[in-house]
Amino acid sequence: MNKIEHKIVVVGAGFGGLELTRALAGAAVRITMIDKRNHHLFQPLLYQVATTSLATSEVAWPIRHLLRRRKDVTTLLGTVAGVDRAGKRVQLEDGGSVPYDTLVLATGARHAYFGHDEWEPFAPGLKTLEDATTIRRRILLAFEQAEREADPAKRQALLTLVIVGGGPTGVELAGTIVELAHDTLRGEFRNIDTRQARVVLIEAGNRILANFAPQLSDYAHKALERLGVTVELGRPVTQLDAEGVVFGDKRLPARTIIWAAGVAASPAAEWLAAPADRAGRVLVEPDLTVPGNPDIFVIGDTAHVLQPDGKPVPGVAPSAKQEGKHVAATIKARLAGNTTPRPFRYRHAGDLATIGKRSAAIDFGWVKLTGWLAWWLWGIAHIYFLIDFRNRLAVSLSWLWIYFTGQRSARLITQGDDDKT
Amino acid sequence: MNKIEHKIVVVGAGFGGLELTRALAGAAVRITMIDKRNHHLFQPLLYQVATTSLATSEVAWPIRHLLRRRKDVTTLLGTVAGVDRAGKRVQLEDGGSVPYDTLVLATGARHAYFGHDEWEPFAPGLKTLEDATTIRRRILLAFEQAEREADPAKRQALLTLVIVGGGPTGVELAGTIVELAHDTLRGEFRNIDTRQARVVLIEAGNRILANFAPQLSDYAHKALERLGVTVELGRPVTQLDAEGVVFGDKRLPARTIIWAAGVAASPAAEWLAAPADRAGRVLVEPDLTVPGNPDIFVIGDTAHVLQPDGKPVPGVAPSAKQEGKHVAATIKARLAGNTTPRPFRYRHAGDLATIGKRSAAIDFGWVKLTGWLAWWLWGIAHIYFLIDFRNRLAVSLSWLWIYFTGQRSARLITQGDDDKT
Repeated sequence: MNKIEHKIVVVGAGFGGLELTRALAGAAVRITMIDKRNHHLFQPLLYQVATTSLATSEVAWPIRHLLRRRKDVTTLLGTVAGVDRAGKRVQLEDGGSVPYDTLVLATGARHAYFGHDEWEPFAPGLKTLEDATTIRRRILLAFEQAEREADPAKRQALLTLVIVGGGPTGVELAGTIVELAHDTLRGEFRNIDTRQARVVLIEAGNRILANFAPQLSDYAHKALERLGVTVELGRPVTQLDAEGVVFGDKRLPARTIIWAAGVAASPAAEWLAAPADRAGRVLVEPDLTVPGNPDIFVIGDTAHVLQPDGKPVPGVAPSAKQEGKHVAATIKARLAGNTTPRPFRYRHAGDLATIGKRSAAIDFGWVKLTGWLAWWLWGIAHIYFLIDFRNRLAVSLSWLWIYFTGQRSARLITQGDDDKT
Repeated sequence: MNKIEHKIVVVGAGFGGLELTRALAGAAVRITMIDKRNHHLFQPLLYQVATTSLATSEVAWPIRHLLRRRKDVTTLLGTVAGVDRAGKRVQLEDGGSVPYDTLVLATGARHAYFGHDEWEPFAPGLKTLEDATTIRRRILLAFEQAEREADPAKRQALLTLVIVGGGPTGVELAGTIVELAHDTLRGEFRNIDTRQARVVLIEAGNRILANFAPQLSDYAHKALERLGVTVELGRPVTQLDAEGVVFGDKRLPARTIIWAAGVAASPAAEWLAAPADRAGRVLVEPDLTVPGNPDIFVIGDTAHVLQPDGKPVPGVAPSAKQEGKHVAATIKARLAGNTTPRPFRYRHAGDLATIGKRSAAIDFGWVKLTGWLAWWLWGIAHIYFLIDFRNRLAVSLSWLWIYFTGQRSARLITQGDDDKT
């Protein structure tokens, strides 16, 4: 419309990209939001889709619906193929390109297998809705197949579910899967006792929730064991296939393995031919621009940002949001004529993880919470952070239902399992 | 357990199979319920998943959960490969077999293309959850692609959505898709006006809802046109591909085509080598047994049952339920020593179809209802028929939300579209 308006292209409608777009409301800019999915995903609750507690539509919302009132924003469904820095255009995979004055890459991360990509078919990770329904299908199919399996060894392998990686996602998956097996599914099978199912959490380091205070790791460890999870520490996975997993000198036959051990950034560094860390994250300047490219910002899980103490900013939703807000302020300052670089400072709000449906561990730094109070705080915080009223209502209903009846509403086996033979 | 208990194998946990199992509660039988899906599907509302109104988990429920209190029932996830009538065993696809004294086949129907199976990739039908998410993806992708399409002719083809078949499913799909385009998506795109989308319902016969009274067909026809649907009568589709559809002498470029025109029974007739009608339905005796096999019953959409007036019993949920109940009573009578054949009599409760979100047509025979009263009656009846309280609550919430806000909560594009190039 107005030719002198500043053109901003945002790639990725995750927490970082959306927050940036929101913070630019009212600015004299025209924004093009490009995402390869049509929905924003509330990733902190994705493990609940994988474990049958929530429906897919309860944790995802159409991007263009979220931005419908913003007439300055055009939402495009498209996959980025590269960036033409000289011509200042974002190139899309199926042809076409979009011009920018300022580019913000907020393309997130995928799971990574530390050089063992051949493990992926046997141990899916959890980043997209399809990942979640794949994991859900495999968990439920394991019990269905065990019900029909006569061979005791094969049955035990079917009833052994392994989670690799003891971070918050691994802990939350393990706690929910063991409840699913021991409570939700209990009494629904005739040939197996689902309480015989083993849920094993394998962590290469010497404690789970390594980013939390040690006493919270300890609490979570004990809470998981009380629920029935076997926690294995100190031995990394060295082999993994359709039959099971090897860690240290131990071989564990298991037909269902979930990967929660590592992430790799999106190919943003490749698009920019920019220096990156080992996980593929772009090494940005303190103001979140790409070195030598003040018109290109990288935020969220795709950026490697150092804190004053030399540690990288963690790849969590709050840091992505803060970075989005920071870049929006920088863009507004520049539009007002102030081009002094504005270094980003991360404010750590805390770490939290749930263990099953009645306890959680929260590390605010100044205070540490565990138990049911932490769980309720976690639940209320997540309902609050959900993206709209409709979903808050639906998720609240789902959770109250699970809380009081133990029943989970999204126990669906859908789509063929073509990636695993 | 008790060796003298009568072994019943039920294949298919649709309306017929479930009703039969319920009606056998307390009888001296042991039931094995075999289904190739892990969930019972509430098919009358499946079109609402395809059109983003309901989540997949709102219309599907795990079979073994529904039957969890029935200790006499074993639920197996498995695909039937055949029936060994001499040995009285049901053979499963991945090996293994299940013995029966009485076998009930209630395996439903798939959509059929009248000898044009090559049309399927371009015009998916609506029978499973995956069908519904495929159709949902294609509808939503059409608008996304139109937003990025510069060529006006291609854009118009993307904004033309065709439904083939003017039965209740076709009418309900057309009414909901036109509302989705004209209301829900309105204002969310920047390069297209979704109100320009054309929704075309093609019916080969000379009226839609051919099973209803003519004045209701007429009412539905006018109601659809008022919503913005183009209804094309009297010309069958003769050609169909990725570019569009030909009916009569008219070629209509359309990138999204949905098939609601015909069904074919499951391969039950092949398993039994039994005589079948052209749609593959087993021609059963008046007591629903297979000719010459009094120990095998076929019910629901897989059975061709004649009414006293010579017309076949329609393939709807109430008839499947009535047949299930009838067979349960027959089995109980036989166990009590009464082997006199008991002919099935179908009681037609009525026909109903919704047109968009504010009107419906209901034909009870003795009374015909249209308009908003019919719509509310339809809605309340369907909430009532839903399988449990949790889903009643969730679906009520979803519908009230749509009713008052016009917003639909399950607008997700998921899974790759590998079946269409």
